[in-house]
Amino acid sequence: MEQIDLLWVVIASALLFLMQAGFLCLETGMTRSKNNINVAIKNFCDFCVSALAFWLLGFGLMYGLSYQGWIGLDLFALDFAKATPYLAAFFLFQVMLCVTSVTILSGIVAERMTFGAYLFVAVIVSGLIYPIAGHWSWAKRSLGEKGWLAELGFVDFAGSTVVHSVGGWAGLALVLIVGPRLGRFYHGSGAHTITPSNMPTATLGALLLFIGWLGFNGGSTLVLDDTVPSILINTVVGGCVGAISAGGLRYAVNQRLDVDQFINGALGGLVAVTANCFAVSTGSAALIGLVGGMIVVFFSQILETLKIDDAVGAIPVHLGAGIWGTLATGLYGDLETLGTGLSRLEQIGVQGLGVLVYGIWTFGMAFLVFYTGNAVFRFRVTEEEEIAGLNIAELGIHQESELQASISTPVGTRP
Amino acid sequence: MEQIDLLWVVIASALLFLMQAGFLCLETGMTRSKNNINVAIKNFCDFCVSALAFWLLGFGLMYGLSYQGWIGLDLFALDFAKATPYLAAFFLFQVMLCVTSVTILSGIVAERMTFGAYLFVAVIVSGLIYPIAGHWSWAKRSLGEKGWLAELGFVDFAGSTVVHSVGGWAGLALVLIVGPRLGRFYHGSGAHTITPSNMPTATLGALLLFIGWLGFNGGSTLVLDDTVPSILINTVVGGCVGAISAGGLRYAVNQRLDVDQFINGALGGLVAVTANCFAVSTGSAALIGLVGGMIVVFFSQILETLKIDDAVGAIPVHLGAGIWGTLATGLYGDLETLGTGLSRLEQIGVQGLGVLVYGIWTFGMAFLVFYTGNAVFRFRVTEEEEIAGLNIAELGIHQESELQASISTPVGTRP
Amino acid sequence: MEQIDLLWVVIASALLFLMQAGFLCLETGMTRSKNNINVAIKNFCDFCVSALAFWLLGFGLMYGLSYQGWIGLDLFALDFAKATPYLAAFFLFQVMLCVTSVTILSGIVAERMTFGAYLFVAVIVSGLIYPIAGHWSWAKRSLGEKGWLAELGFVDFAGSTVVHSVGGWAGLALVLIVGPRLGRFYHGSGAHTITPSNMPTATLGALLLFIGWLGFNGGSTLVLDDTVPSILINTVVGGCVGAISAGGLRYAVNQRLDVDQFINGALGGLVAVTANCFAVSTGSAALIGLVGGMIVVFFSQILETLKIDDAVGAIPVHLGAGIWGTLATGLYGDLETLGTGLSRLEQIGVQGLGVLVYGIWTFGMAFLVFYTGNAVFRFRVTEEEEIAGLNIAELGIHQESELQASISTPVGTRP
Repeated sequence: MEQIDLLWVVIASALLFLMQAGFLCLETGMTRSKNNINVAIKNFCDFCVSALAFWLLGFGLMYGLSYQGWIGLDLFALDFAKATPYLAAFFLFQVMLCVTSVTILSGIVAERMTFGAYLFVAVIVSGLIYPIAGHWSWAKRSLGEKGWLAELGFVDFAGSTVVHSVGGWAGLALVLIVGPRLGRFYHGSGAHTITPSNMPTATLGALLLFIGWLGFNGGSTLVLDDTVPSILINTVVGGCVGAISAGGLRYAVNQRLDVDQFINGALGGLVAVTANCFAVSTGSAALIGLVGGMIVVFFSQILETLKIDDAVGAIPVHLGAGIWGTLATGLYGDLETLGTGLSRLEQIGVQGLGVLVYGIWTFGMAFLVFYTGNAVFRFRVTEEEEIAGLNIAELGIHQESELQASISTPVGTRP
Repeated sequence: MEQIDLLWVVIASALLFLMQAGFLCLETGMTRSKNNINVAIKNFCDFCVSALAFWLLGFGLMYGLSYQGWIGLDLFALDFAKATPYLAAFFLFQVMLCVTSVTILSGIVAERMTFGAYLFVAVIVSGLIYPIAGHWSWAKRSLGEKGWLAELGFVDFAGSTVVHSVGGWAGLALVLIVGPRLGRFYHGSGAHTITPSNMPTATLGALLLFIGWLGFNGGSTLVLDDTVPSILINTVVGGCVGAISAGGLRYAVNQRLDVDQFINGALGGLVAVTANCFAVSTGSAALIGLVGGMIVVFFSQILETLKIDDAVGAIPVHLGAGIWGTLATGLYGDLETLGTGLSRLEQIGVQGLGVLVYGIWTFGMAFLVFYTGNAVFRFRVTEEEEIAGLNIAELGIHQESELQASISTPVGTRP
Repeated sequence: MEQIDLLWVVIASALLFLMQAGFLCLETGMTRSKNNINVAIKNFCDFCVSALAFWLLGFGLMYGLSYQGWIGLDLFALDFAKATPYLAAFFLFQVMLCVTSVTILSGIVAERMTFGAYLFVAVIVSGLIYPIAGHWSWAKRSLGEKGWLAELGFVDFAGSTVVHSVGGWAGLALVLIVGPRLGRFYHGSGAHTITPSNMPTATLGALLLFIGWLGFNGGSTLVLDDTVPSILINTVVGGCVGAISAGGLRYAVNQRLDVDQFINGALGGLVAVTANCFAVSTGSAALIGLVGGMIVVFFSQILETLKIDDAVGAIPVHLGAGIWGTLATGLYGDLETLGTGLSRLEQIGVQGLGVLVYGIWTFGMAFLVFYTGNAVFRFRVTEEEEIAGLNIAELGIHQESELQASISTPVGTRP
């Protein structure tokens, strides 16, 4: 590794960090102003606690000396002043990936969880669930032996599964435990859209996420090699096509321009190319983004039908498109570039196995821990607190825009 | 080209991408909350469609093998996984320049165009008008032969004309076709300022644009050479002086601190130095920014007098200061650095010719296509839709801040 | 210095520039909407005037040929087109540091100063107070001889004192002269919290500042050497621990989750590691951040007790944690890395001396100049203007959110 690679990894880390700002804008914009301070400060604090949990525990579990490809066993609470610059830069990049995975959860369960319970969840995901899962695919990539899934030939370049699906699966488990927001589903009728506070801010958030994704995918080479520009173009193309695909599909079906679907379609396209952008043609990236966008639309419908209340639509984006992107790696990835020595069919099979394994581990483990946690100390705020809004109930803080919002009717009536 | 140049072009592209976030903030902040979701999602989607149109068509027209310096004829829908890393990085940077040019239009005609018509406009500009125009000046810079204007000695380093004026000219044609917003001009009286929704957000947008401009101008070297730091300083100085110049002039004339003019003055200063920042002294950059800022103020007055309703003041900034910056390249550019072999007077003449040629082509072509398009399917929303606001009329979406806004009087009365 | 170092300094400058966007968001979010345009445009304009003042005057005073370690005497209004690329890149980085120091003041005295007076203050700080103070510690770092404090062994790596405390001391002087906002302190009762307009925006601002700090601390090496990744990790860890420390302390004492304290705690942690992140272990960075966060909480209490009205809590962050970070450099810095040849005790003594010297110079000089200035032309707006809000009173501008705000009660009642 040369100095220029070090520089690229550092810059990619800064771009990844910008995704935290993107999530903050996306999630506060899509939620109600009576909760938006709470949403914002959860985003801010989950970064802080997750980064520390990953330093103290997660990084070692993920990249420490491997115990038979299942778990890492050293590198806990490292003093990076004494580490190699390569390891330090690698940590910086990895810590930003980790918090991305965690932050996905914050949007899904926004507007109903207590602050303390959410921080507990963040520590569990960043310190345990994410790093152990990550070890299986990425351990080898850096320091120790190969993880067992990587050994089988599972490929997930920048984390369609390892980062995005893991966040999505854990979020799905959590949302099943905490339940939907009051007023989202009525008995005997369909879902009611909850009026967002500020969609331009949400759109800004999606744009910041898009920009940050250049670091996410581009930096996952961990070196500045000749593939980086093509990876970045695949990223841009995947995201752009995803937006048009989801927005267009929604328009074709409902004759409605749907801001959510443009935004989440773009993010779905980005998630979908994340696993494979290093090994597919620009045209394939467009195709993968196209399907990714459509999956976001379908998945959103399914969640609504199942009365699962994902406040910002993050499960369709990160879990739905994440699964698709992982499979698409097997379908469209150049086998030579993948370098696993598997046939096309075997590769597809292994990708499917990986999807399954991550689903079982992450959903199962998350459900178990969160269910237990919720039994010990209630994750959900009280009904009164939820109606009052978490800004006041949890933080005891008023702000002008929140005071104003109480004048207008808080629940929208978009049919 | 070495790896470090590749890295710089990639980073500059990311900075340029940030300008999309800047435009989004600037334009949603300067428009009314009843339209601001619409403004934001147009910004988001024009990026997506323009990037794809540029990949499929525009890039080839702009940088493909030249037909006699007038138009490029290959490189359409390239698979960048098979291209050289240099070409891929170059594309990434160029696609970001292209969408910048397109996004300029979105602000000018905000609050009155249909979503579909705007996307049509974006595709025409990014796929046809901008790349053909760009070929004449920049074709040589990369791959093929010199464009015919470059052959004559026309110099536009980072795009005062090629990017900014082109956006401005096309926007002028479009705004003449769609007309002013309801309530902007009354018969027998002057212009009425339409109350913006959120000027701090607009100011944030201007700051993000300023930051992104480091990539815009600095990356236009396409290599990390010794001129980059001086280019960046000229950029910063031009923008800073522009703000003070426009804001100060406005204060001197009207005894009014005018937020718009500080913001747009800075952007005008930035546009003005864009063509020449590689070939002028820091002092000259200050002078060019000074005049650039003043031009923004005068141009705004002229548009108001002519009853042309530019919703965010983008024509003064991008067209007005763009013309000035292009001429200033002839006036103040170091002839040796320009490297055209022309005398000072010849250089000024060629710069003037370029301004003229770009005006005729862009305004003419844009007017022709948009006029035809508007005849086939109406570009403008209905009067009821405009009064209701495009958030509801086009997107069928409410948001809290928009609900609140309906409480207060929507039209301001700043004299 | 090699090309890669040049690139790193340029990128770090762009990241530092992003801090201006962070300050804008932080300060407009924490203040009332009746003043928020004013706050935003002051942020924007102080960047413009300070950058120019630093170019024309400050840079020379700070880095020009030293007169006995006290003041620089050349390099005024340089033409960077003729300078070495190193010097130009160095200037770019330094100008961003300078405006950071200045912008600290804008938050402290927000909502009560006239626009003109604030620009006067910005010019004085960026053109005189900051650069002369900076010379004493940093002169040598670049070009001339060592400053007299550096000669004694004073170490302030990236500016806990030189940038942050200087901003804090000058802000303290200024706030004593202009006084608290109306309604902040009542006779015979305690302080009243003034309802902020938009805390999610403030949180976004803190996140942007955090991201920008990677450039702040990482770029202060001025070369891309092996210490950069560890410096960045110390920065992240310091900030994260600071947030938890301040927020946790506040919760422990008051059973209140306090958004301000999470945010300002993170910033306090970041300020605290700024002086020493190149010379401490990751664990020490955590400890320094921990204490930094606590100092923010205590300092906030002290200011409130003394009836000093710091509108955004910037004095605790930049002055309080800045002093701590400077002392912590002596306490925890690796002596060999510090390279001053002093013993631990001597080093601590010199750090203390530096704190004292900067306090006397900056506070004294700022108080003198601002007191005189205020006597000549009143710094503070009239009582009517303050009640009406500076958006209308100073800028004559309405915006929708501000119109709405007038519906709700403008002053909060958080106990």
